[in-house]
Amino acid sequence: MGNGEKKFILLYEKEKGKIDDLLKNAFKGRKPLTLYNPGAYILNSKGKRLRPLLVLLSSRAVGGNFDQVYNAALAVEMLHNFTLVHDDIIDNAEKRRGRMTLHKKYDMNTAILTGDILLAVAYEFLLKDCNGNAKSVMNSFTKGLMEVCEGQSMDTDFESKHKVSINEYILMIKKKTAAMAEMCCRIGAILGGGTKREIEALANYGLNLGIAFQIQDDLLDITADENIFGKSIGGDLVEGKKTYLFIRALEISAGDDRKRMQNVILKNGVRWNQVKLYKELYVRLGVLEDAKNKIKYYSDKALNSLADIKETDREIFFWLTDQLIKRTR
Amino acid sequence: MGNGEKKFILLYEKEKGKIDDLLKNAFKGRKPLTLYNPGAYILNSKGKRLRPLLVLLSSRAVGGNFDQVYNAALAVEMLHNFTLVHDDIIDNAEKRRGRMTLHKKYDMNTAILTGDILLAVAYEFLLKDCNGNAKSVMNSFTKGLMEVCEGQSMDTDFESKHKVSINEYILMIKKKTAAMAEMCCRIGAILGGGTKREIEALANYGLNLGIAFQIQDDLLDITADENIFGKSIGGDLVEGKKTYLFIRALEISAGDDRKRMQNVILKNGVRWNQVKLYKELYVRLGVLEDAKNKIKYYSDKALNSLADIKETDREIFFWLTDQLIKRTR
Repeated sequence: MGNGEKKFILLYEKEKGKIDDLLKNAFKGRKPLTLYNPGAYILNSKGKRLRPLLVLLSSRAVGGNFDQVYNAALAVEMLHNFTLVHDDIIDNAEKRRGRMTLHKKYDMNTAILTGDILLAVAYEFLLKDCNGNAKSVMNSFTKGLMEVCEGQSMDTDFESKHKVSINEYILMIKKKTAAMAEMCCRIGAILGGGTKREIEALANYGLNLGIAFQIQDDLLDITADENIFGKSIGGDLVEGKKTYLFIRALEISAGDDRKRMQNVILKNGVRWNQVKLYKELYVRLGVLEDAKNKIKYYSDKALNSLADIKETDREIFFWLTDQLIKRTR
Repeated sequence: MGNGEKKFILLYEKEKGKIDDLLKNAFKGRKPLTLYNPGAYILNSKGKRLRPLLVLLSSRAVGGNFDQVYNAALAVEMLHNFTLVHDDIIDNAEKRRGRMTLHKKYDMNTAILTGDILLAVAYEFLLKDCNGNAKSVMNSFTKGLMEVCEGQSMDTDFESKHKVSINEYILMIKKKTAAMAEMCCRIGAILGGGTKREIEALANYGLNLGIAFQIQDDLLDITADENIFGKSIGGDLVEGKKTYLFIRALEISAGDDRKRMQNVILKNGVRWNQVKLYKELYVRLGVLEDAKNKIKYYSDKALNSLADIKETDREIFFWLTDQLIKRTR
């Protein structure tokens, strides 16, 4: 481990701890408790806090500092948690970050309202860090919110669609995942006082990083080590999800392979004991390699976007990008 | 009907028509349709559009005009519809404004996401009308959103509480209903360029009007003419809702009357054929008169708040207030 790397890990751990502490206090003293306690439950769960980190780093990269944007950093994490709470209802998920999902621990009605209040408080916090730039910051945040709703809706549509192209998939993950990372970088850069050029550079970094991150997510579902991953391998296949791997495999397969792929659609997924066979098919078709290339493509594009950022400020983004595409869970 | 009144009715009808038209176009051309079509469905339903009207009138009352605030007017109606969609899921309501509720027409997942996108687009529209005042407008709007969530949560809590005081009730309706009317007047006045004094005057008008409106709502449930009201009389009693009438009756009743009131709590409501008996009890206890007095008290307070507004601009608020407390549905 190089000295640079160690420095970055320490910074990440320190800021993650700070964000965790601030989130713990964000809902304190608010009433009614039947609304804010479930909100605190979800905010206190273990997250990577990557989105707040992007806000902080983007502010600093343009000459701003962390103190200017802590409220904005909390706001993006609250927005993220709002999406998790509502998406978990929609997906009928039982677990999240190793704990019960909100609608399972409480009930659906509580989870709907808790999502709503997380979003409201997110706006409240974001506004605290806004000054003359309120309109452009609020516009970016709101656009991020709209895109994440649109992305979730597209993702749900994909479930009943028999044919989804790679372009449609990329548009969906841009909206569902990457637009939020783009927004984090953008508002960090605006609040930090960046130039138009710097703001666009960082926003592009976030967008492309987000795309790489999501394809990596799809890849991990089939290539991860089950013990490190923390959940069963092949869950996406079992659910019949239209992931990057799946769409690509369907696109390039022929003959019996193609029939096998189409069977997943007809049967709305595979059985757990078929996962190994499909993994072998993916390997044979080269879609795992293909996905790795795409991850490399988008993460390179992310880093190339940073040409306008000072080299000393750029280093940590290189480290962060490397961490995310090397991650094993 | 006086000439003044006729003028006000014409203005209301004209602006309501304009708001309806603008709402019809608000979701046009947006994708995915699976998200925006349900949103258009709810926006196209017949509403009174009172909240947009408050925005328009408040802007004009401080020397601004309607054109400055149409987007803000749409935003408050979208926010209102967001609350309707999520509340209808929570209350498991089947009908709204004579049509199927969104989660009945589509499904629950669609309704959750549609509520979310209505809120997102509300912020988008509001921002269009903001300039140097973005921070204070956004803060007011966000506070309104938070209060409506808190109010809905309190209302749900009341269902399982055996004892709710009039003060708790007033706090609940302040948050669930009145805070939104207050916010509409406040942002209209800010965007119209009002002084601090004018803004507070109009905000107080909205707050007190909202309280009067909600108590009137509770009263209508038992005193309305079924044919005009459009739904069965006594629905709140059947559901065992903690309305102004119910809380007051429980508070002042004694002996057998008190037992009868407590029975409603124990049995989570009354049977439809008991409504008439309970109405007689309400009359005997004087709680209908009491409610009328409270409506008068809050509507007077609303109008007295307008002392700082020019008399020619004040007239329409007197007319509007009169309409709302005289309404029969």
